[in-house]
Amino acid sequence: MTLAADRLAPMANAIRALSMDAVQAANSGHPGMPMGMADVATVLFAKFLKFDPAAPKWADRDRFVLSAGHGSMLIYSLLHLTGYASPTMDDIRNFRQFGSVCAGHPENFLIEGVECTTGPLGQGFAMAVGMAMAERQLNATFGDDLVDHKTWVIAGDGCLMEGINHEAVGLAGTLKLARLKVLWDDNNITIDGDTSLSTSEDIKARYKASGWDVFECDGHDFADIERALAAADASDKPTLVACKTVIGKGAPNKQGGHDVHGAPLGGDEIAAAREYLGWTSAPFEIPSDILADWRSLGERGAATRAEWEARKVSHPEAGEFTRRMAGDLPEGEEAAQTFASWLEGETKVATRKASENCLNVLAPFMPELVGGSADLTGSNNTKAKCQEPFTPDNYGGRYVYYGIREFGMAAAMNGMALHGGVIPYGGTFLIFSDYCRNAIRMSALQQIRAIYVLTHDSIGLGEDGPTHQPVEHVMSMRLIPNLYVFRPADVIETAECWNLAVQSKETPSVLALTRQNLPQLRNSGEMLSARGAYTLRHAKADRKVILVATGSEVELACQVRDDLEAQGVGADVVSMPCMELYEAQEEAYKHEILPNDPSILKVSIEAGTTMGWQKITAFSRNGGLNIGLDRFGASAPAKDLFARFGFTAEAIVPKILEKLSV
Amino acid sequence: MTLAADRLAPMANAIRALSMDAVQAANSGHPGMPMGMADVATVLFAKFLKFDPAAPKWADRDRFVLSAGHGSMLIYSLLHLTGYASPTMDDIRNFRQFGSVCAGHPENFLIEGVECTTGPLGQGFAMAVGMAMAERQLNATFGDDLVDHKTWVIAGDGCLMEGINHEAVGLAGTLKLARLKVLWDDNNITIDGDTSLSTSEDIKARYKASGWDVFECDGHDFADIERALAAADASDKPTLVACKTVIGKGAPNKQGGHDVHGAPLGGDEIAAAREYLGWTSAPFEIPSDILADWRSLGERGAATRAEWEARKVSHPEAGEFTRRMAGDLPEGEEAAQTFASWLEGETKVATRKASENCLNVLAPFMPELVGGSADLTGSNNTKAKCQEPFTPDNYGGRYVYYGIREFGMAAAMNGMALHGGVIPYGGTFLIFSDYCRNAIRMSALQQIRAIYVLTHDSIGLGEDGPTHQPVEHVMSMRLIPNLYVFRPADVIETAECWNLAVQSKETPSVLALTRQNLPQLRNSGEMLSARGAYTLRHAKADRKVILVATGSEVELACQVRDDLEAQGVGADVVSMPCMELYEAQEEAYKHEILPNDPSILKVSIEAGTTMGWQKITAFSRNGGLNIGLDRFGASAPAKDLFARFGFTAEAIVPKILEKLSV
Repeated sequence: MTLAADRLAPMANAIRALSMDAVQAANSGHPGMPMGMADVATVLFAKFLKFDPAAPKWADRDRFVLSAGHGSMLIYSLLHLTGYASPTMDDIRNFRQFGSVCAGHPENFLIEGVECTTGPLGQGFAMAVGMAMAERQLNATFGDDLVDHKTWVIAGDGCLMEGINHEAVGLAGTLKLARLKVLWDDNNITIDGDTSLSTSEDIKARYKASGWDVFECDGHDFADIERALAAADASDKPTLVACKTVIGKGAPNKQGGHDVHGAPLGGDEIAAAREYLGWTSAPFEIPSDILADWRSLGERGAATRAEWEARKVSHPEAGEFTRRMAGDLPEGEEAAQTFASWLEGETKVATRKASENCLNVLAPFMPELVGGSADLTGSNNTKAKCQEPFTPDNYGGRYVYYGIREFGMAAAMNGMALHGGVIPYGGTFLIFSDYCRNAIRMSALQQIRAIYVLTHDSIGLGEDGPTHQPVEHVMSMRLIPNLYVFRPADVIETAECWNLAVQSKETPSVLALTRQNLPQLRNSGEMLSARGAYTLRHAKADRKVILVATGSEVELACQVRDDLEAQGVGADVVSMPCMELYEAQEEAYKHEILPNDPSILKVSIEAGTTMGWQKITAFSRNGGLNIGLDRFGASAPAKDLFARFGFTAEAIVPKILEKLSV
Repeated sequence: MTLAADRLAPMANAIRALSMDAVQAANSGHPGMPMGMADVATVLFAKFLKFDPAAPKWADRDRFVLSAGHGSMLIYSLLHLTGYASPTMDDIRNFRQFGSVCAGHPENFLIEGVECTTGPLGQGFAMAVGMAMAERQLNATFGDDLVDHKTWVIAGDGCLMEGINHEAVGLAGTLKLARLKVLWDDNNITIDGDTSLSTSEDIKARYKASGWDVFECDGHDFADIERALAAADASDKPTLVACKTVIGKGAPNKQGGHDVHGAPLGGDEIAAAREYLGWTSAPFEIPSDILADWRSLGERGAATRAEWEARKVSHPEAGEFTRRMAGDLPEGEEAAQTFASWLEGETKVATRKASENCLNVLAPFMPELVGGSADLTGSNNTKAKCQEPFTPDNYGGRYVYYGIREFGMAAAMNGMALHGGVIPYGGTFLIFSDYCRNAIRMSALQQIRAIYVLTHDSIGLGEDGPTHQPVEHVMSMRLIPNLYVFRPADVIETAECWNLAVQSKETPSVLALTRQNLPQLRNSGEMLSARGAYTLRHAKADRKVILVATGSEVELACQVRDDLEAQGVGADVVSMPCMELYEAQEEAYKHEILPNDPSILKVSIEAGTTMGWQKITAFSRNGGLNIGLDRFGASAPAKDLFARFGFTAEAIVPKILEKLSV
């Protein structure tokens, strides 16, 4: 707890030794950052961070985010040295090899002590903002006894230069997230060379302009680091500490240059570093006294955790807190009955409005649902009536005005989901999924429950024109592994998809929703969307055609089907609200609704790119038919656009008949 | 030229009247911004902007970018009132209707006076940075006589809050782009309500922190606006003018509120506004004296342009300048010979390195090639030997250190291409195309020549792991309309694809390139990549299989083919470096290399998502076979990953034989 500098220095050198040796053994990796930030990280873990290596998932631990994820050997070293069960020294020896939990970048799904997956620059920082939001939100409900922790971040120049940093800094400043503490590895180096090559920004002034506190220190002077971190720890604002460091510190001939960033030091330089640092141990060996110092750090956390566990036992809300942190859903019998009652209706609404109706059912009994929008609340229909704004004056609020910050919003949602205790959802126009696409990918990679409410999902958007009309977006999201892309056809499917999304613990969801009204297409059937696709209309005449459609085009498919039936051509309509769930069904079910029958013509209808639909229509009479939009849209009323681009029964039926006649 | 305030006010009201009437007629649109910024825009056009309505493409005009593109009626009004041939009053009457050039957001491909397509927030501003870069780059070559203009931007709170703004501001500040002048519509309103809902930033302080000049004015006081714009005009730094405005100014009951942002005012409020503004004309009618004042503004520009034309006639570099502004390529006989000579080689290199070799051939004879990288110069291999850095001290440089700003880079590239005279290319890892995806889309939508050099294009990236390994990216870019996605297989195809990219005036290009070395696969054939796909190896035995592959998997396909042939199974190998160009070929050619023959098994091999490949393999024996990667990657050496994920002949050949035996 009160380790002196003469004991901290060897501890920090243990990080340096492990980092340079692991990178050398892997013959790839990034030694510069762990070596440069070893001293700062040592002080953070020794004197400030609240953690217990015996309980990596302790709910009230401080969160530590290595936003500069390429410096992964820093966190692997810290976790191993402080005594986490994972990674082991063998894992570290196998750094960057197949099967090692010590991957090139830290992955939350491989090591419990890794709070989030980092590497894509700027996102760790922005996820930390979400963690700090979740902490305050839960604190407002459960109080200091159960929730009272900080989020610490190590970030590099790359994280600060990325656009998302502006969004994260602005959000944290506006929300006054005082428990967010960012340690900036201020080493004046990027991959291309000195930072002056590409930036002339006064970073400290920028942070101050957004309501942050800023401190600085010599990142290699333990006392100075401790002074600055103490000031940060005590600040009542989100805080940046500029830690002036030398990249690759300890490698005497390479430190301070950009070559040390992302390549092994080489045998000669490692030998020189050992001498320079006075490090005499063999690779992957830590002297017992130094290891003992590291291991002693866990004691403080263990004691703090014991006190917390004691408080929790007697806390009246302990059960609810445990449920929420486990990510389990509350009982919702009443909600289920409400949804069931909708089947009896004839509700014609836009699916964005249907989604709002769902939220008004779900949000009252799911206090963990924390929503928001990137400044499109009234368009995305994302605010439930029961939700108050989440503001510095009311952290108990459950609706976030994210501002015009799609990427920052999505990353914050990831951070909230990773923190646990809240289920985040957030809205923007589907087209602007482009702005936050990598954060959506990170939801999927990190296996977390984040729900994206993406409205105005086609040319049905109308007059705003091609910049705002998604064409390729639904299909392009389907390409992302471990992501449910829901495109419901009516109010019933919207309710089913929302229910599937909130139940999906390890797969994030996209809800692609219309601006325009859609009729209710179903009055029976329970949770048919769970199978991804189902037969909505059965052929009356001899079945020659199966129409597969999603979202707003299911109504159109039904019209096409009626016209075909009127001409004696039997046609099924398959609604496919979620292609991923359909693909995951057993073969028997898949073939039941979409048989590999070469006498049947399969036709897909979706107001977006056709490429990808061939997967569904491949086994088909004459190779199938794909109705879609393989060009940019245009500015006009939606009705005109659908007509112009061939999304009418009048345009589609002849194409089908022609294909049948070949 | 010296119109007094009492004449400016009615001119500004003409903008207001046209805007509210057009939005009302369309029953959709955004009146708030044009009405709020009418006064500022009037002063800009009347006193500062260099333009000639008779020559919208005059090379030395000032560029005017309406970054807040939703306020499109502002620019349509300005262009019409000042006398541009397009839009006509009929176009304005048909605002937001199918076929009108007055689309919901301004589109550069519909109206000559629209410098760029805007609407996706933040990108207009960032494109303006690129325009200002191109201006300085050309100025360094051709001097003040030919190139001496400014770039003026109108931006709203949304443009300033987006992450890309940080990147654009940082880039402009570092590059000291003094000719960039941004007029910020500082109206305290976003869609969700007051800006204080989502931001507490001191915007002026942030801009100053990045080396910008900042002025402010009352956006409804003509003299004050003129004072501030004069100060901005004279500044030797990139400049922000905070124009304090009232959104929807002129609508007496609605102005100042967020409801006026994106909906028609309604008949009553329009009547009230007419009275408030003293505007008595019928909708779409402009009093002749006011129109005369507007039309008189063009005279100044016409005179200035005449002087410029006179200077150009006698300028020694006039021919070269004209060529470059027209976007025509120079003669390159020597380069062509160099490329042709490569066919004789056996060059085994990564395609990123092959790309660098191409740049070293192209850049010396194409002075318009201006490259760069988002801080991955050594990894993207984007710098040609002959290129010096583009810096404030050397605007003649042709290599931009963009910093860790993928989105800002891509938007700046768009701005450069739109400005004309330069052909921009820029690099990052393929995975980080996610960060700039909408700017790539905007290259495609705007029909411009921007070239994206996206390296480390698969799990072949290796140890950096799943955050850095593109899986879905190649296919997801293929979904974007009007974009060439090149994935060359060797040094020869890389050269062909580079040549196709620089020749492609109205379609942007992505070059997806490997980190790992690939053998040269071809020693003959001229520009085969131009057809998108071609038969690289012909079956020797009776042809039962066609293997279609791209990039690094073409080598693998050749190995698979050799193994199949050794077992008596004839197999073609089709290399498909560009699916879009293949799809654009006549049917005869497409069927020649990929016949619709149900006896032949078609197999796609690409180290990425398989969805999409069914389009190519659909007509096939047994439905075809798609070898790919439909999950996230992992951290390990590339060789291990290819083996683990089944990208070996040993793994693929049995699958093919099994499929043949069914």
